[in-house]
Amino acid sequence: MADTFLNELQSTFDKAALLTGADIDVRYFTDMAGKASPKPRAVVRPKSTEEVSRLLKLCDRERVPVTTQGGMTGLTRATMPHEGEIVLSMERMNAIEEVDASSGVAIVQAGTVLQKLQERVEQDGFMFPLDLGARGSCSIGGNISTNAGGNRVIRYGMTRDLVLGLEVVRADGTVLNGLRKYIKNNTGIDLKQLFVGTEGILGVVTRAALRIFPAPAEQQVALCALESFPKVMALLQLTRKRLGGELTAFEVMWNEYYRLVIERVKGVAAPLPTHHPFYVLFEASGSDADRLRADHEKLLEEAMNEGLLLDATISTSRASAAAIWRIRDSSVELGRTFGVGARVGLDVSLAIDRMEEYVKRVRSRIKELDPNAFAIVLGHAGDGNLHVSVYHDDTPEKHEEMERLLYGMTREFDGSVSAEHGIGILKRPYLKLSRTEAELETMRMLKRTLDPHNILNPGRMFTV
Amino acid sequence: MADTFLNELQSTFDKAALLTGADIDVRYFTDMAGKASPKPRAVVRPKSTEEVSRLLKLCDRERVPVTTQGGMTGLTRATMPHEGEIVLSMERMNAIEEVDASSGVAIVQAGTVLQKLQERVEQDGFMFPLDLGARGSCSIGGNISTNAGGNRVIRYGMTRDLVLGLEVVRADGTVLNGLRKYIKNNTGIDLKQLFVGTEGILGVVTRAALRIFPAPAEQQVALCALESFPKVMALLQLTRKRLGGELTAFEVMWNEYYRLVIERVKGVAAPLPTHHPFYVLFEASGSDADRLRADHEKLLEEAMNEGLLLDATISTSRASAAAIWRIRDSSVELGRTFGVGARVGLDVSLAIDRMEEYVKRVRSRIKELDPNAFAIVLGHAGDGNLHVSVYHDDTPEKHEEMERLLYGMTREFDGSVSAEHGIGILKRPYLKLSRTEAELETMRMLKRTLDPHNILNPGRMFTV
Repeated sequence: MADTFLNELQSTFDKAALLTGADIDVRYFTDMAGKASPKPRAVVRPKSTEEVSRLLKLCDRERVPVTTQGGMTGLTRATMPHEGEIVLSMERMNAIEEVDASSGVAIVQAGTVLQKLQERVEQDGFMFPLDLGARGSCSIGGNISTNAGGNRVIRYGMTRDLVLGLEVVRADGTVLNGLRKYIKNNTGIDLKQLFVGTEGILGVVTRAALRIFPAPAEQQVALCALESFPKVMALLQLTRKRLGGELTAFEVMWNEYYRLVIERVKGVAAPLPTHHPFYVLFEASGSDADRLRADHEKLLEEAMNEGLLLDATISTSRASAAAIWRIRDSSVELGRTFGVGARVGLDVSLAIDRMEEYVKRVRSRIKELDPNAFAIVLGHAGDGNLHVSVYHDDTPEKHEEMERLLYGMTREFDGSVSAEHGIGILKRPYLKLSRTEAELETMRMLKRTLDPHNILNPGRMFTV
Repeated sequence: MADTFLNELQSTFDKAALLTGADIDVRYFTDMAGKASPKPRAVVRPKSTEEVSRLLKLCDRERVPVTTQGGMTGLTRATMPHEGEIVLSMERMNAIEEVDASSGVAIVQAGTVLQKLQERVEQDGFMFPLDLGARGSCSIGGNISTNAGGNRVIRYGMTRDLVLGLEVVRADGTVLNGLRKYIKNNTGIDLKQLFVGTEGILGVVTRAALRIFPAPAEQQVALCALESFPKVMALLQLTRKRLGGELTAFEVMWNEYYRLVIERVKGVAAPLPTHHPFYVLFEASGSDADRLRADHEKLLEEAMNEGLLLDATISTSRASAAAIWRIRDSSVELGRTFGVGARVGLDVSLAIDRMEEYVKRVRSRIKELDPNAFAIVLGHAGDGNLHVSVYHDDTPEKHEEMERLLYGMTREFDGSVSAEHGIGILKRPYLKLSRTEAELETMRMLKRTLDPHNILNPGRMFTV
């Protein structure tokens, strides 16, 4: 059967922009876990906003669904092509167009890799504060579409807070040119907000104006051991009060996480013994290393005097700071040491004063389902965000049951089923646990308004 | 003629909730400048979200337009009733329902006066960072609907950045219960963003979950004199670098503003002589007064050595800090000293490296229209936001011509016609200077989706 739509693509895009048949690499339909999807009908890799617009106009007219791809590091299978879909890969729109030091703004194309932007602005003495494990492959467009969080949210906010302006192509090919550099702009509906964190279902982000900040030259990191969660909360309050705007991270690790990383992940050293109930890593950033050091020492002394700490250590060099961070950042590597067993990965927002009870309850309830199940917990405590990995025996039925149990518990504790990873396909069944029917109905109204033929990432997040 | 709609309101709301005829005070239809609008058909003052919902359902069914009112301190006549409109006043929904210190969240009803919230959280050692001149009468609902800015945006962001969750009533009476306390919540479309800064045209905000922060105990303020705008920019860069997260304000005043406030506003003292070209006020906040003081002194010494300053002074007490702030905060009082002459008040966002040229051009162009016209300029330089007051001879034709000239110049300089005051009625003719036709069309699509019968603040911001 002749594919007239493919013929039309061929006459619209050059060979570098259009991949079909055997030219389509598996990476366009394989996720982070190595799981494949149906091969896309074609892969289109535009070099310009105008080409994105042309593609969408065509797809909208012919009702051909499109899935937009960035760095393919998402955890919810949102960008895996479904049967019959075209892949729109932003990988060739990867230019850093402008770094405006006086306004503190960078203008980048959506396919730019996060780390490239971080490194580019560093040359001018700036930082782009968004930072996460996938920095070497995730794209700015993907960060925006998932409203990525990461390690510095406590100080700089989520990706949403870093976006000043967006250029977006609507489903019908209309280009919304909102690439403005202002911090303040109360002129009508702030349309860009609709495209941050909406996983590409309302439009395709092509370029962004992003906030950059003068790079703080120095970091100071502390690692503390504590005997109870209330003391973790008290330490957070004290840290916020004493460090104020210097505080750039406050991360908590339950005992199992810390202990197992030390025991199982190669090359990670233990700055503190592994038997304490809780560990906290906090970081301050500023321009004066001696002062940061003195602040940390004074704060730890105060915390010690108030009986909050069992033990503590502070970084004495960049290397020792990196070694402490290494522990916090080893969750993926730790997961790999458990081999192929089934895992439910929760990314929960929760009131901090309910976290302890929540984790206790998770531990006991999963054992009712599977006596061998266990939970490893850590999180961005300062942002009310826990990452809980539940490992259990590997049967698909049990896995689904375990998932239902755990997402259901999130609701019992008034938590959100996704703090920073998004919904995509994997969490779609659980979205209703965090949103009311009236909210879901409003989301569907917006989707139908902006994408009436349902061609943009259809079925992701929710069904229309 | 019997007003059957009024009869229906009477049978739905009690006497405290419904005002009609002579019971309607002039304040419900008079703006900040004392200018009146048509008297509303009725004023409804609900005590609950359920009552707001009932009112809107009724109005939507009968196609009766409604204007929602908060503290009535807006500058764009957005809340002035048009002929035949019902006023929905949120003044009786003014409870502070919860202050959650451990999560750093306050839950308030939309009619709560900003200052009441500030004072309430202070009791627990917290601050709600939003602050502006109208604090004693503006309402939280109004702050949210206009995405208010103010003096601390450089550190804490706009109102949007302080909103964690909203309860909103849609035009058809549907209640969207999004009153969540999480900082991170990537579960579907972030609907609350649609109701922040949209001046009530997409829904009525009834309750909000707002971020609060540990109150920094101490403030240190400096006032500097500079000879050129490039030096103002260099001082901003240096201040950001040295003070980092401590920096809570960076305000610039052109000579005329400073000089005229000192000369004309009663009780304002001059910490520095009045002949310098530029003045900058900056503020740092933290928990240690001695350190803030030392930081300021060191920074000023460095700035002096780099040749950035002509003169400088720092606050030595709360009283002297307040005296310096008094100068910056006297713009309304200064305006009053010019009597009844016509004034165009611009609230422009602009790239900082174009500000100087913009102001020079404004000064020369207004004189071409009116040789007696003059401009007084100050602004939140750290946020790229200038407030420009142009005073000129008072004829309506000339006023319109002057307005067209000034808003047109905003566009020439790639500026935004409203940084923080919004659009309402007064700036509606100029919205198209800051937004493309595709953006305006998208705004209208959203309005038609969420308010299909155009009953919510119709004609404000744009016409459907």
